Amino acid sequence: MNEQAPTAGIEARLAVIEAKDEIRELTAKYCFAVAEGDAETLIDLFCEDGVFSMRDREWVGHTGLRTLYDGAASGVTPKPYIQNHVIQVDGDAATGRCGVEIRMVNKGVANTVAGHYSDTYRKVGGRWLFARRDFKVFHWVPLARGWA
Amino acid sequence: MNEQAPTAGIEARLAVIEAKDEIRELTAKYCFAVAEGDAETLIDLFCEDGVFSMRDREWVGHTGLRTLYDGAASGVTPKPYIQNHVIQVDGDAATGRCGVEIRMVNKGVANTVAGHYSDTYRKVGGRWLFARRDFKVFHWVPLARGWA
Amino acid sequence: MNEQAPTAGIEARLAVIEAKDEIRELTAKYCFAVAEGDAETLIDLFCEDGVFSMRDREWVGHTGLRTLYDGAASGVTPKPYIQNHVIQVDGDAATGRCGVEIRMVNKGVANTVAGHYSDTYRKVGGRWLFARRDFKVFHWVPLARGWA
Repeated sequence: MNEQAPTAGIEARLAVIEAKDEIRELTAKYCFAVAEGDAETLIDLFCEDGVFSMRDREWVGHTGLRTLYDGAASGVTPKPYIQNHVIQVDGDAATGRCGVEIRMVNKGVANTVAGHYSDTYRKVGGRWLFARRDFKVFHWVPLARGWA
Repeated sequence: MNEQAPTAGIEARLAVIEAKDEIRELTAKYCFAVAEGDAETLIDLFCEDGVFSMRDREWVGHTGLRTLYDGAASGVTPKPYIQNHVIQVDGDAATGRCGVEIRMVNKGVANTVAGHYSDTYRKVGGRWLFARRDFKVFHWVPLARGWA
Repeated sequence: MNEQAPTAGIEARLAVIEAKDEIRELTAKYCFAVAEGDAETLIDLFCEDGVFSMRDREWVGHTGLRTLYDGAASGVTPKPYIQNHVIQVDGDAATGRCGVEIRMVNKGVANTVAGHYSDTYRKVGGRWLFARRDFKVFHWVPLARGWA
């Protein structure tokens, strides 16, 4: 008799739920670190070969990402709020999509941003990390002008 | 001896968590489809007899819902962001409440909307769907005017 | 042979997931009650000795909290939206951090608020409650002026 039998299926289902929970917290930690301008923590949330892409630009690997996040941390830090998260887990890989609203200051002007992230996640050394974030911008406009 | 005994309670608890996870993703998929003006996908998230209600209007069934979502898709698509989700699961039925903020464009003017959805969900053919969404609007105003 | 062995670890993991789920819903219920100006419900979400702190002020215990929430309920109620929640559970205690955006009206003027809550939660009589909410305000400004 296989003693694992009664629990093996349940354990696998629970592991998927736990993975999704950790991945949602990964994106939350991302928001906290952006809001605090903590480039070190941000980079640590990405795989060594992790990529962030936006419009026609890419920041590749920890060195490339440092350029991006040091820049964001140099002035008034953006305040991102992530919602609407859908995640598909496949073993130690996962993909996800989530919405984001960001309060920014660009050259002294309050900007408001709305968009979606398309993410790829990978479990490395027991931790879920970003393998890739593709940021699709719906609009990135001065608050006073609005999104029309 | 009942071999199911040790795991039956755990399986039932896990099933509730999984149902809530899927229902949260249902509302996220709703936001993605609204943002993309994808009326087909939106309708497919509702039961055949599903209802969306707002203020004193109702859109009933897939045919009625198509009127609503084709309209939303005809211009600049709204960008909804859903949060604060509370869900009660009872077998293949569930109720929930969640907050929503929406970035709209109405007649060329940036509008901002805040409200709550009161939802009823039903599991049909293995998938959780909207049986009913009642949208309570706190305010729906031009961004330049604000909500005061 | 210990019949509990195969399921004990799984049950403990599931209990953590359930606790986090209930705590997220606690913060959602908080938002609903604030939006409705329901001070009784708000106070009931806190431990008897619960604390809310903001800037250099603290509201302590159900009596102190009533002062805070009766005030919020006296005019146009704030509309908070909570996101980006990270939670650590340790038995019947937990800590968490989450982001919040709030639509306010102050003296007839539309205000927009962004910040983070640092929370402590405690399980009392089978229910997770707020033991403490520390509200860090990023900005609290008239919408027309923005956050620059």
